[in-house]
Amino acid sequence: MRQVGSVLWPKLRTLQVYGANTGVGKTIFSTILCQAFRKRFEKVHYLKPISTGPLQEADDSHLSTFGSGILSKTLYQFSDPVSPHLAVRGSSQDVSDNAVRSAVHDELSSYANGNDGIAIIETAGGVLSPAPSGITQADLYRPLRLPVLLVGDHRLGGIGSTISAWESLHIRGYDVQSIALSDESRYGNYAYLRDYFAERNVDAFSITPPPDVRATASEDIESMRNYYSHASDGTQVTSFVDRFLQSHDQRIDSLQSMPKQATEAIWHPFMQHSERNENTVIAMDSAYGDYFQTYQKKPSQSIAKPDPASTQEASLITPAFDASASWWTQGLGHGNPQLALTAAHAAGRYGHVMFASAIHEPALTLAQTLIQRMGNPRLSKVFYTDNGSTGMEVAVKMALRAASKRNGWSPDENVEILGLIGSYHGDTIGTMDCSEPSIYNKKVEWYRGRGHWLDFPTVKMRDGQWNVEVPEQLRKELGDTKSFDSLDEVFDLDARKADREMYRKYLDGEIDQLRQAGRKFGALIMEPIILGAGGMNLADPLFQRCLVDAVRESTPSASDETDWSGMPVIFDEVFTGLYRLGRFSAASFLGVDADIVVNAKLLTGGLLPLCTTTASEAIFEAFLSNDKSDALLHGHSYTAHAVGCAVANESLKTMMKISDSADWTAYRKNWSSPAVELSSASPARSLWSMWSQDFVKAVSHKPNVDSVFAIGSVFAMTLKDPAGSGYASTVATGLRDRLLAGTGPGQAVIHSRVLGNVLYLMGAMNSTPQTLAEVERTVLDALE
Amino acid sequence: MRQVGSVLWPKLRTLQVYGANTGVGKTIFSTILCQAFRKRFEKVHYLKPISTGPLQEADDSHLSTFGSGILSKTLYQFSDPVSPHLAVRGSSQDVSDNAVRSAVHDELSSYANGNDGIAIIETAGGVLSPAPSGITQADLYRPLRLPVLLVGDHRLGGIGSTISAWESLHIRGYDVQSIALSDESRYGNYAYLRDYFAERNVDAFSITPPPDVRATASEDIESMRNYYSHASDGTQVTSFVDRFLQSHDQRIDSLQSMPKQATEAIWHPFMQHSERNENTVIAMDSAYGDYFQTYQKKPSQSIAKPDPASTQEASLITPAFDASASWWTQGLGHGNPQLALTAAHAAGRYGHVMFASAIHEPALTLAQTLIQRMGNPRLSKVFYTDNGSTGMEVAVKMALRAASKRNGWSPDENVEILGLIGSYHGDTIGTMDCSEPSIYNKKVEWYRGRGHWLDFPTVKMRDGQWNVEVPEQLRKELGDTKSFDSLDEVFDLDARKADREMYRKYLDGEIDQLRQAGRKFGALIMEPIILGAGGMNLADPLFQRCLVDAVRESTPSASDETDWSGMPVIFDEVFTGLYRLGRFSAASFLGVDADIVVNAKLLTGGLLPLCTTTASEAIFEAFLSNDKSDALLHGHSYTAHAVGCAVANESLKTMMKISDSADWTAYRKNWSSPAVELSSASPARSLWSMWSQDFVKAVSHKPNVDSVFAIGSVFAMTLKDPAGSGYASTVATGLRDRLLAGTGPGQAVIHSRVLGNVLYLMGAMNSTPQTLAEVERTVLDALE
Repeated sequence: MRQVGSVLWPKLRTLQVYGANTGVGKTIFSTILCQAFRKRFEKVHYLKPISTGPLQEADDSHLSTFGSGILSKTLYQFSDPVSPHLAVRGSSQDVSDNAVRSAVHDELSSYANGNDGIAIIETAGGVLSPAPSGITQADLYRPLRLPVLLVGDHRLGGIGSTISAWESLHIRGYDVQSIALSDESRYGNYAYLRDYFAERNVDAFSITPPPDVRATASEDIESMRNYYSHASDGTQVTSFVDRFLQSHDQRIDSLQSMPKQATEAIWHPFMQHSERNENTVIAMDSAYGDYFQTYQKKPSQSIAKPDPASTQEASLITPAFDASASWWTQGLGHGNPQLALTAAHAAGRYGHVMFASAIHEPALTLAQTLIQRMGNPRLSKVFYTDNGSTGMEVAVKMALRAASKRNGWSPDENVEILGLIGSYHGDTIGTMDCSEPSIYNKKVEWYRGRGHWLDFPTVKMRDGQWNVEVPEQLRKELGDTKSFDSLDEVFDLDARKADREMYRKYLDGEIDQLRQAGRKFGALIMEPIILGAGGMNLADPLFQRCLVDAVRESTPSASDETDWSGMPVIFDEVFTGLYRLGRFSAASFLGVDADIVVNAKLLTGGLLPLCTTTASEAIFEAFLSNDKSDALLHGHSYTAHAVGCAVANESLKTMMKISDSADWTAYRKNWSSPAVELSSASPARSLWSMWSQDFVKAVSHKPNVDSVFAIGSVFAMTLKDPAGSGYASTVATGLRDRLLAGTGPGQAVIHSRVLGNVLYLMGAMNSTPQTLAEVERTVLDALE
Repeated sequence: MRQVGSVLWPKLRTLQVYGANTGVGKTIFSTILCQAFRKRFEKVHYLKPISTGPLQEADDSHLSTFGSGILSKTLYQFSDPVSPHLAVRGSSQDVSDNAVRSAVHDELSSYANGNDGIAIIETAGGVLSPAPSGITQADLYRPLRLPVLLVGDHRLGGIGSTISAWESLHIRGYDVQSIALSDESRYGNYAYLRDYFAERNVDAFSITPPPDVRATASEDIESMRNYYSHASDGTQVTSFVDRFLQSHDQRIDSLQSMPKQATEAIWHPFMQHSERNENTVIAMDSAYGDYFQTYQKKPSQSIAKPDPASTQEASLITPAFDASASWWTQGLGHGNPQLALTAAHAAGRYGHVMFASAIHEPALTLAQTLIQRMGNPRLSKVFYTDNGSTGMEVAVKMALRAASKRNGWSPDENVEILGLIGSYHGDTIGTMDCSEPSIYNKKVEWYRGRGHWLDFPTVKMRDGQWNVEVPEQLRKELGDTKSFDSLDEVFDLDARKADREMYRKYLDGEIDQLRQAGRKFGALIMEPIILGAGGMNLADPLFQRCLVDAVRESTPSASDETDWSGMPVIFDEVFTGLYRLGRFSAASFLGVDADIVVNAKLLTGGLLPLCTTTASEAIFEAFLSNDKSDALLHGHSYTAHAVGCAVANESLKTMMKISDSADWTAYRKNWSSPAVELSSASPARSLWSMWSQDFVKAVSHKPNVDSVFAIGSVFAMTLKDPAGSGYASTVATGLRDRLLAGTGPGQAVIHSRVLGNVLYLMGAMNSTPQTLAEVERTVLDALE
């Protein structure tokens, strides 16, 4: 089933009516609004998605009676007059969230025929009353993110319940256009709420309460007709109608002008701005789950462009699958209400509290969780910073100091780092210096690569075959391409004895040679398994493992087994850690423990910047002395900010749960290779991906595809590039643009990023198999 | 009036009963709980802070009737049976928030006499029902942050209203211990809510609903007595009591063990850890407004230690004024509900959306606001990063490229920066390189100071007299100490013609000499007015102004008036900008426009990491070409994260409002010097501080004080240090420790930070004059 996204039609306005509670008069307000809008538009739709209770008492029949000329409809009717989640019991209808969302989406779409009009969508019960599936209504309808009118509670206690209901909508990312309520002056609710919301830039308006019930039904109908006729003409209602229509137009103006305004006021990251114009900037109206809700100045090529034969009006907003997982950060989806609430709780409890010599529960819990769950007995201390780059700066400072102290090197000496070619550790100058000269850094005036970088064998699937491929210039030492029956076999490090021997011989020689040349190394820095920004290279894990072993055994000097030897080993797990590759720590693929580990990105589930640099006790002790200037004098203003730490705790807890979920079990099963006997029997050593094995193989066979791989949530394909690969390559951008334009009706629109001739796809931890399957189909079609 | 803080007594437990709405049975639950606790404790208090309606129907008389042995009390009784904010009309009682908070705090304190017991505090109406002053109840009682029992709504619609009420408490930072409600099975509310909250780790329990009203009053009383007697013995209630008592003990254990656990798992910023132990780490239980709610293993010397003659039990939590404004970040106070809600709305609407080639409303609005409000016609483009250090790295990359391109320097050349001695721009290695060698950086292996740094005259008040003091070695060129009648005169730059002439002559000569020596400068970098981390040095604004002028006029090469000349000028306003010194931009004190401005810290009002680097169009254009590698290839995962940008917009809007508030008008008036005639008549040129002029003068006269200054929210005092000043000095730590211990009953406990022999105080933008006055009194006492 297609994912339902947000909608915004220029001519068909939509307004969703929520109630602060049951019994606040949603239907009365809906009727008044329908009548009021009827004076502006020919077509006024009243839609009740879900109705419970006897048919004759249903809200749409109220509308039929009192809403002359209004087109009213109910999508789901259940006769039991209770909450929808109870009323559906025994029903055979598909009332799953996506079914209901799709039904509402399709119904509204059918109204969008190019004529000016409005649809009023009335919810059932209060804002958080349960929907048929059991989730709250505000969560059910959130993907559509329609503008909201909240009917407040005019009764005793209604001030508080109205504000709370508004807060519940607000933290779910809704735009509440207005609060409306009956003006019963006894409790002064309206007067209070009007002022309260005015301070928050939310309009409020009131209506005269409806008349008392009359003696006979016909008198009653007459009296209500009169009431509606007057109420819909009242100043407060007509001025709301004016404001609403204005705000609709303003929203469209704002969305349409954002790309151009962005070109005027924004300096975008990682972009050559000579290529930027208002057609290349995408406006994000909102986002939900795996999808951006996008507006593009340049209409996409198929989805958003209506069939010329159809009278269908196109929505300005297109949902686009976030295939870069928002630069590799997403773990739990956009607009996640649980993370929003967690963030707000920490903000409400602490705000930010200075962290020097202080501790608070979220920071302590997060540190303890990381130390415990990383499964690395060396690690004992967590240092907080704000992003991967600053966290790597800290890691480098830690390692250089530990190495310099033990080796007696002075700060003036040229201490370097050892790494792999194509590594990337951030954009601050200190971390840039940890990578070899490249297009990323070579023009930066203060960049001075300070290290030595080794080339390495990579793992690739070509035409359905897993290979370990050795760079041309290393084939003499490391042999030719080796083929494997499965990814599991590649990662079965203990079994690859011959490769190990070759690798160690080569690496021992290299290290020896470097030392002979008098070079001093303060750290070995590696991204375990995947070198992300360098072009999504899947390193042969055995080579990385051998490099760590070689470094450590080169000068054994550790005082105990948690101490470092040779040189401190830093694993940059900013991208690869915390379930990105399906495991808490990517180091577990190598079966070796680092002395310093850096985590960020997924740490907060994809919501906020936060980074941890976790170090061993031996590294920590290198900074102890009686002199303050020997300390690690590093810190940022918002170090260990409570909001980030709290969100991280909630995210890790949720991701740990997901790692045991049925979806993940199914992914693992899809990749299990029972025929292969592994030397290391641990099931944890089995490699798998959220992307199906069939998809990965199918892509690898495509004629324009050079090679592919997939692990955990990451899939990467290298496209054949006749002009030679590299970051400057543009061969993948054509595919990227096709995916963004949409390949056809009913298929996903995909917002992807490329790295040279590599296009990658990445899910969140809670992306559903259905969503990923849809993306797979779309990508396969686009590769035809 | 004293600020009311959070309380936590080991023996006197507290439980605040909130209702999801009016009429959900708070008093019935309170009565049941009082009776249930009465079986555990001798002393059970029932406190109704505010009651409306006839006295004989008041909740405490219900308790008197049914709560045998319960000590019940009402603090404020109003006879009108309406919401408290209406009921107080015409009352002469002081019902200000602080009065009510103090009354509750004092009443509870009087119960804390060392005996085991509990106080049940019952609120009025629903969670967000208005308190007497008009703010919501949840906001009224938030400073106390008592553990909460939320009585859910068992009626139709009660599922939604209960969850919304919980969310309103949660986003205000409350710990809701449990949800309780009548189990009326018709609507299934309890079954739903129990499962819903179990997923969120909140217990829920239910009770049998009370019996129907009987025919006579005495039968009714008898029936209710029976009901209470059974209900308070029920399994669900007794097991809640057990859980509550356990969680109380666990909270204390956790708080008391946090400092030690922190020493095991945390690597603190900017600390020599050989000095760290569990007595030196402060646990932050929460924070509110200007105050941390702290637990210290080492009891503070007076406040927290009870008078030995008294039976008063000390609260484990001490409110401590956050005098470092949490490392200079606080603008709008801790636990600010408006910022929490804004953060949650952005999280709910977007989560984080990737910013490359994209735009969203919060980022666009923030960029436009900064460009417009900075009042600097050069600025046109905003680049987002996560903290001041990364934002300065970007600024340096921008300036060096622009300068290198225009001058034809290659990346291999040694391009340097020009700055002032004692500058600080962050802890990443690139920004460290922008400061001269010092205790902060000299032991960092990769630190290589790349620049030339000038010493400069500073502004100080000594013994009530404002001086501009010239460093010893510059007196030949710049003259001796100059005295001024007011700070306004110091900042009246146009009037200081003789000084200007001397400064320019000296600076022109210095710059000429550096160029003659073949040195290449890519940027002038300065913190306008105050060099913060370098030791709170107030630079002579005229000197900074002359330096900018000298640099720009040294090689005039600008193509138009928004172009840079000489070298790009970077203002690091991370600390000094955005109202920290009372103005949107600190550059306005110098009357000169930078080419690049960096803002952070106050940008989000003190909640979250976010940084902007705002540059001129000329700088931006230096990166334009047809080659991607010429671009500024910089970016962080969470660049322009929507939550941070949204919070920044809300914060700036709020701070702009505050700048016109009555409090700020009073501060300005306190500092106005009508007798002094200024050459530049603009009232905006008048210098002022939130700290009173009397206080600043009084401190300057203290015998152990060397000098002081105050501007905007910042007050700094340099203590006399016989051993010589500097970052390694410890002379101020004694004062800091005294302030943290508390100088006596009724005085503020102050959590301050020192920089060498400098101790500073900093308010938030919304600190009240009362709070600051209390801090001033305490500091003056501590200096005796």
